[in-house]
Amino acid sequence: MDKRYDIAIVGTGPGGLSAALNAKIRNKSFILFGNNNLSSKVQKAPKINNYLGFSSVSGKELGESYGNHIKEMGIEITEERINNIYAMGEYFTLMVNEKAYEATTVILATGVEFSKPLVGEIKYLGRGVGYCATCDAPLYKGKIVTIISSNAEGEEEANYVSELASKVYYIPLYKGEYNLNEGILIVNDKPIEVLGESKVNKLILKNSEIETDGIFILKDAIPPSQLVPGLKEDDGHIKVDRLMATNLNGCFAAGDCVGKPYQYIKAAGEGNIAALSAVKYLNK
Amino acid sequence: MDKRYDIAIVGTGPGGLSAALNAKIRNKSFILFGNNNLSSKVQKAPKINNYLGFSSVSGKELGESYGNHIKEMGIEITEERINNIYAMGEYFTLMVNEKAYEATTVILATGVEFSKPLVGEIKYLGRGVGYCATCDAPLYKGKIVTIISSNAEGEEEANYVSELASKVYYIPLYKGEYNLNEGILIVNDKPIEVLGESKVNKLILKNSEIETDGIFILKDAIPPSQLVPGLKEDDGHIKVDRLMATNLNGCFAAGDCVGKPYQYIKAAGEGNIAALSAVKYLNK
Repeated sequence: MDKRYDIAIVGTGPGGLSAALNAKIRNKSFILFGNNNLSSKVQKAPKINNYLGFSSVSGKELGESYGNHIKEMGIEITEERINNIYAMGEYFTLMVNEKAYEATTVILATGVEFSKPLVGEIKYLGRGVGYCATCDAPLYKGKIVTIISSNAEGEEEANYVSELASKVYYIPLYKGEYNLNEGILIVNDKPIEVLGESKVNKLILKNSEIETDGIFILKDAIPPSQLVPGLKEDDGHIKVDRLMATNLNGCFAAGDCVGKPYQYIKAAGEGNIAALSAVKYLNK
Repeated sequence: MDKRYDIAIVGTGPGGLSAALNAKIRNKSFILFGNNNLSSKVQKAPKINNYLGFSSVSGKELGESYGNHIKEMGIEITEERINNIYAMGEYFTLMVNEKAYEATTVILATGVEFSKPLVGEIKYLGRGVGYCATCDAPLYKGKIVTIISSNAEGEEEANYVSELASKVYYIPLYKGEYNLNEGILIVNDKPIEVLGESKVNKLILKNSEIETDGIFILKDAIPPSQLVPGLKEDDGHIKVDRLMATNLNGCFAAGDCVGKPYQYIKAAGEGNIAALSAVKYLNK
């Protein structure tokens, strides 16, 4: 452990970026986890009319303005996917597979996952269905594991699991070159339903089915309570007060992950509040 | 009464403008009260670094972007100063001196007043000190009234009061040409303290004093609970929930008036939420 940051910001949508601007201006040490493409949701928006100050921009243009702004402020993005965040009392530990980061405060700006769960997904959650393959891999030593991934980051998780599991199926929900260990079976089919008895034993796809002991569903956004054990939710979103504080001391949140409306300027405004609340917490 | 609007928005800072964008996009009938100069606080800001998407702009430049945005959306500003807003059950009545507007919902984005109260101001509030001269003018028929005004809109109030009062002193806290009725005495001195016994009887200024029966202090922002009777406050700000709803059904609020941090993008984000909450309320 070489450094404890004042603030760790998780997410590079408007909530996370806005928080980073304020952390920088307030002269705090911080690390911003996310993607240099910023937010895929922003990039894909055809036309945005209600981000005050920008008349009728495309998501791509707004994203470019975001990128220029953080570049001019000298803010860098650490392209790592946080699997788990643990409240340790005086600080937080953020896990990236085997690597760990430490920060005194955390700002969650992790977005929301719009995809509907598979039939049976929620029923078997914790009984063979999971959202973090690397976290739970040891449970599947010598067993059959299926990984359904929304993005290329799932490949690394599949490779890791393949070192332990007897067999790994990889179901990519995206197109591209797959950088996978030998022996991993790629299945190009649409997952429909999780079946089992006391535990998962089968995944039904549109045109096939797979006998499996575990199914990991790697979504673009991890459910917050899965990411941070002990975090309180309210109707599927992180519960926050008006100052964007969660139920965990030193943990703040902003953007879509704290609730509707799902809007860019709302997220940016909340990121601003969350960062200033974190600064206040640090200065106490 | 010729029209009942879906939404009345009070204030043309970032909170009010952002609300107006969303009211327009959601196709609601609305009226936006404020100033074509938008917000004097925005105009005067030297440098803004934390409005995500705009790197290092001046307040003047950001204000111009706001102005262009609402112009391109075809949004107009009604330059009137709301004195009182009454919750009538199914709708709200917004008073501008003798004129009244009606709206099913209201969004308050009235900002905050940073000036410290005069010594004795709060003590004598309601006992000779008031914030709306035209509202209370009838109480001062044949009496001596002093008006302390932060802006030129006070001149109209002074003229109105002078038709009833025996004598009117006008203390402008701004520079400019004063358009006042004959007989109104302009006092160029700095108010310090309000004195009285059961009621106000004197105003102490830096270099002089005035015997007076009433003192009206016209600030850039009216205290919210004074503006809207029955509105709940919390530590001097309008109390709202995460969806920007106040304690009054159909009344929402956004921006500095609902609390710190006092930041542009926070206000704009809240205006967005407030408008979408009003739309939801209207559609019910």
